[in-house]
Amino acid sequence: MAGTGQTRHLPEAPAVVLVGPQLGENIGMVARAMLNCGLGDLRLVRPRDGWPSESAAAAAAGATAVIDGVRLFEATNEAVADLQLLFAATARPRHMTKKTTTPRRAAADMRAFAARGGRAGVLLGPESRGLSNDDVALADALITIPLNPDFQSLNLAMAVLLVGYEWYLAGADDPGPALAMPKRSRPATKDEMGGLFEHLERELDACGFLRNEEKRPVTVRNLRNIFQRAGLTDQEVRTLRGVIAGLASGRGD
Amino acid sequence: MAGTGQTRHLPEAPAVVLVGPQLGENIGMVARAMLNCGLGDLRLVRPRDGWPSESAAAAAAGATAVIDGVRLFEATNEAVADLQLLFAATARPRHMTKKTTTPRRAAADMRAFAARGGRAGVLLGPESRGLSNDDVALADALITIPLNPDFQSLNLAMAVLLVGYEWYLAGADDPGPALAMPKRSRPATKDEMGGLFEHLERELDACGFLRNEEKRPVTVRNLRNIFQRAGLTDQEVRTLRGVIAGLASGRGD
Repeated sequence: MAGTGQTRHLPEAPAVVLVGPQLGENIGMVARAMLNCGLGDLRLVRPRDGWPSESAAAAAAGATAVIDGVRLFEATNEAVADLQLLFAATARPRHMTKKTTTPRRAAADMRAFAARGGRAGVLLGPESRGLSNDDVALADALITIPLNPDFQSLNLAMAVLLVGYEWYLAGADDPGPALAMPKRSRPATKDEMGGLFEHLERELDACGFLRNEEKRPVTVRNLRNIFQRAGLTDQEVRTLRGVIAGLASGRGD
Repeated sequence: MAGTGQTRHLPEAPAVVLVGPQLGENIGMVARAMLNCGLGDLRLVRPRDGWPSESAAAAAAGATAVIDGVRLFEATNEAVADLQLLFAATARPRHMTKKTTTPRRAAADMRAFAARGGRAGVLLGPESRGLSNDDVALADALITIPLNPDFQSLNLAMAVLLVGYEWYLAGADDPGPALAMPKRSRPATKDEMGGLFEHLERELDACGFLRNEEKRPVTVRNLRNIFQRAGLTDQEVRTLRGVIAGLASGRGD
């Protein structure tokens, strides 16, 4: 996985700042989630088990560029000194006069901010207890992830993934492929569809399936609807005509 | 953590079906991600290290209700037999004529579908190699997660989290109608679809259409995809089985 492609994280992507992370493994999984989302700027404030960390590198599973670029800080305010818009990710509500937002809204804010040349970041606390109130106070707003209120515990990498995912999608030129069809074959023409229908109905007449004259128009329409709805390719029309011919040709054997 | 609060997953929430998961730890993390998102129906097809699993229970970190409710299956088609709308999560593109969608669009589809009483699910393959083409063929559409194309590797729990997160959020809005189902008839179950496929393939074997052993798997998969895509109702499955029987029954006349 190593290669230049890894560095496709953009300069305007938000920084991720982990305050007092405990397990190297979790730092590695954060790095991996970041690279999934095109984020590259990872900053650590007093990681409990020191840095560099073998377990972090192992858990990063190929997100080497993020691990190699990690910067270490002694204090949270130093780690966020160059940032201009800072969100604090918190699981539990804080009794502070501070705006609370969601990953989706924060992503839109960060994109708009970056478009004007601003630097944004997200702050996350230790696995066990989250951010201190002093660290939260550094942030412009809180991010809470709006999931099942009865089971909110998300590990660090999961929280980073959801914030990063929203950030990534917020920058997509278009919101993603619309139920796209593979292009390996062209859609059947109406003429080809008509040929399929005539073939099927001719054989169904021959075997007696359509002998009820009263029901015939409804049955024929229903069958045509099924194949119409499937959005067939020209190749699929040929396959289905082979199926009809095959099933019918057994006759008289 | 066990308690009634945990069971806030809703009956209409999609099922998560893991085919051949390798590590119990990953199954536990999937259970945790599911409960974060209010999902409760976890199904396993041939977990490599057996079931129950101590490492799964440990990694579930409190998502006991999901682990306790796990159902085991020998084959993928049995695990999805009662589902009517099935998405296959795939990292790499598949050369199949099948719709591809995103977690956000799939979530809206599943919500709209559930609102009309349908049962939906998401299929995920083993950590190492993803779903087999035969398993993918069972699905109505593929979900790919639109993240950094240069670093797409997401572990199982991460993929489940993103799909579940979108499903959870989609419940906040009114998703509106998508993948519209006819209202006069209910969507066919996977079991009914399986019956249709077996019927068709049995007759195609009998008439010699599938005699080329080398091409057989591809032809069978292509045919299944066509009918899968059509979004058949139970009534339409019966009609098509009548068509197959009718065409084949002419034999010997």
